[in-house]
Amino acid sequence: MSLIKKPVNGMKDILPREMQIRDYVAGIIRETYAGFGFQSIETPCVEHIENLCSKQGGDNEKLIFKILKRGEKLNLAEASGEEDLTDAGLRYDLTLPLSRYYANHANDLPMPFKALQIGSVWRAERPQKGRFRQFVQCDIDILGDPTNLAEIELIAATTTALSKIGFHGFTVRINDRRILKAMADHAGFAPEDYEKVFIILDKMDKIGRDGVAEELAQAGFAKDVIGRYIDLFQEGDGDIAQIRSLMETLQADGAEDLITIMETVRSISTADFAIRFDPTLVRGMSYYTGTIFEVSMDELGSSVAGGGRYDDMIGRFTGQKTCACGFSIGFERIITILLEQDFKVPGSTEKYAFLIEKGASQEKIAQVMEESKRYRAEGKQVLVAWMNKNKKFQKEQLQKEGYLAEHIRDFYNTELMRG
Amino acid sequence: MSLIKKPVNGMKDILPREMQIRDYVAGIIRETYAGFGFQSIETPCVEHIENLCSKQGGDNEKLIFKILKRGEKLNLAEASGEEDLTDAGLRYDLTLPLSRYYANHANDLPMPFKALQIGSVWRAERPQKGRFRQFVQCDIDILGDPTNLAEIELIAATTTALSKIGFHGFTVRINDRRILKAMADHAGFAPEDYEKVFIILDKMDKIGRDGVAEELAQAGFAKDVIGRYIDLFQEGDGDIAQIRSLMETLQADGAEDLITIMETVRSISTADFAIRFDPTLVRGMSYYTGTIFEVSMDELGSSVAGGGRYDDMIGRFTGQKTCACGFSIGFERIITILLEQDFKVPGSTEKYAFLIEKGASQEKIAQVMEESKRYRAEGKQVLVAWMNKNKKFQKEQLQKEGYLAEHIRDFYNTELMRG
Repeated sequence: MSLIKKPVNGMKDILPREMQIRDYVAGIIRETYAGFGFQSIETPCVEHIENLCSKQGGDNEKLIFKILKRGEKLNLAEASGEEDLTDAGLRYDLTLPLSRYYANHANDLPMPFKALQIGSVWRAERPQKGRFRQFVQCDIDILGDPTNLAEIELIAATTTALSKIGFHGFTVRINDRRILKAMADHAGFAPEDYEKVFIILDKMDKIGRDGVAEELAQAGFAKDVIGRYIDLFQEGDGDIAQIRSLMETLQADGAEDLITIMETVRSISTADFAIRFDPTLVRGMSYYTGTIFEVSMDELGSSVAGGGRYDDMIGRFTGQKTCACGFSIGFERIITILLEQDFKVPGSTEKYAFLIEKGASQEKIAQVMEESKRYRAEGKQVLVAWMNKNKKFQKEQLQKEGYLAEHIRDFYNTELMRG
Repeated sequence: MSLIKKPVNGMKDILPREMQIRDYVAGIIRETYAGFGFQSIETPCVEHIENLCSKQGGDNEKLIFKILKRGEKLNLAEASGEEDLTDAGLRYDLTLPLSRYYANHANDLPMPFKALQIGSVWRAERPQKGRFRQFVQCDIDILGDPTNLAEIELIAATTTALSKIGFHGFTVRINDRRILKAMADHAGFAPEDYEKVFIILDKMDKIGRDGVAEELAQAGFAKDVIGRYIDLFQEGDGDIAQIRSLMETLQADGAEDLITIMETVRSISTADFAIRFDPTLVRGMSYYTGTIFEVSMDELGSSVAGGGRYDDMIGRFTGQKTCACGFSIGFERIITILLEQDFKVPGSTEKYAFLIEKGASQEKIAQVMEESKRYRAEGKQVLVAWMNKNKKFQKEQLQKEGYLAEHIRDFYNTELMRG
């Protein structure tokens, strides 16, 4: 009759301290994106198994938590494989449900549609430190805007949100899949090899130009092709001049867009961040069709947000061409960073604890409740609790939870307050 | 390759208008409960199948969405039943996960522990109007406080939250399982018949005293027992005098507690609501051990929140006696009511739409973005969008989404604004 106490393998319980940060961050994100006209939407956590296995997912499909059919639909005796046992699964990202949602509701939605989704997704990956099988994704997407106003707004909104959370001095790196391809084309790679080349290029920040050249050689590419390719990645400051200089060597759609995006974002930004062109930025997903971008912080060595334009994907599912551009904040990554930095939620010092002597009269309790009501009306948090026998220990615990010593008050049963 | 557009059977996509209300209500609830010292926690949506099927659930077990084992653990050839195929399921309530969570983390949690959970639960019920297979529950629980300070705080916090959402003139009905039992005992029912009697008593508000008497007779109970029982349910105003008068006829633990709770709640309440004793209040769950309460609104004829004390349940799972008292807000019910009332989220009139003439120069775009930034800094929402060819229709649509006509501004590519 007793419970298994641990959560299921790879998933986690969230303790109050972390939850407070999560609620706070989600609140800032919602508020900021709402300010930019993004609208919250939600889809069920459970999706049709057919949709989840519709190939867009690629490797994700292996990671699906599948849900058993129920009642008469489940016929174990005649089942010959998993596909006979399941009709649904837990979503592994928010993009596929967004496509379905848009296909289902486009007539009821504004055009273009600016969507915000914050929600859990599930992947049956091998559990490892810091990676969980249930985690929150936080996506904004603009559907139906082919212009780079979409990119400008996504970047402006996301950098504003990151800055309100408390991040500064970060860098938005930006590139365009079309430039990426034009560079590979210019060097002489065959289109069918592009993805292979980009996977190696993606390691540039770790292994450098020599390392990339070496891995390309190991992969069997011709020396002169590699040479021409590597030459394109001259040191650069990522400024607009670097794009212009690159465009003297090769031509690529997207270059002018990048310049416009960078100039506009710079001219309107309040947040303290840099935006720079990074020709080595790849972003894994092959569904991107144009601009791609990522936010990184030097001192952390990892990205905290990423996204890009994917004009072909939604149409493939819905049958109706819909251009799309999205930016995803690495919610779990941000929470981990804030926890490591021992982040304190602003305003959380306005916490009071009122301790009532045990056995206090009803009048005394009412008096304490009345006083707590006054404090709460002023926006303060008030914990009302019984005073423990070991009052000293109790107060130490409360201070660990963020109650300042001078905000802990004792209420005794007599009219006079003692010691 | 095309997607199934509808959500899975019995679940729903949430459109922006509803989502805005949901986010708003959840925000008010979080903020209010935090003010009372409740701490947000979260458990995974996926639970061990052993825990979900641990009998506490009763009928709920049949309604579990079960998750297929993965990889080598799934051995279809040797599986003889569902139990061989699944190792986990989606949670069907928040109380069982809370018990597991508390058993797992009690050492890291304050004592008593005041928990707030807002989260989705899943039940494979037959879909019907207004009832969905995924829905949000919103629970507060105080673990480890045996005194009626717990009840007072739960009621004060929940009525404050309801009042901040905008509900007024509601009634908190309160009873105690011990009074319920003492009344049945006084009439002469046998303890093993109590639950059966209470199920009939629960219909009092629909079928009246005569109806209850009739159904009890049909169930085979003796006439004199029924007579004594029905006599106890004299018309009453639900005030404290009614409790005292009842206690002249019978004795019940809990009566003094009820009086204290009612008097204290009244003396401290700001919200516009009544609290009254209702001896016919049953609340379905047999796990309640003491006070039970429910919030109802006359004009709606249904409850919007309910809860009670359940001192035995957590210990049964964790092996360590832990008294507990909880209050659950009917989140989905409240959203439905607000949608029916065409509820407008406060502050949502401060929405602006800036429409830019298509083909505008980069400078013009930057200027519009700059202006929108100024508005946003003042807390206003600004949607920046391209001006459609059919500007009139576009503006009509925007007004339907809550943008006031005078808050929609046109920006043309020339320095002068036209028309």
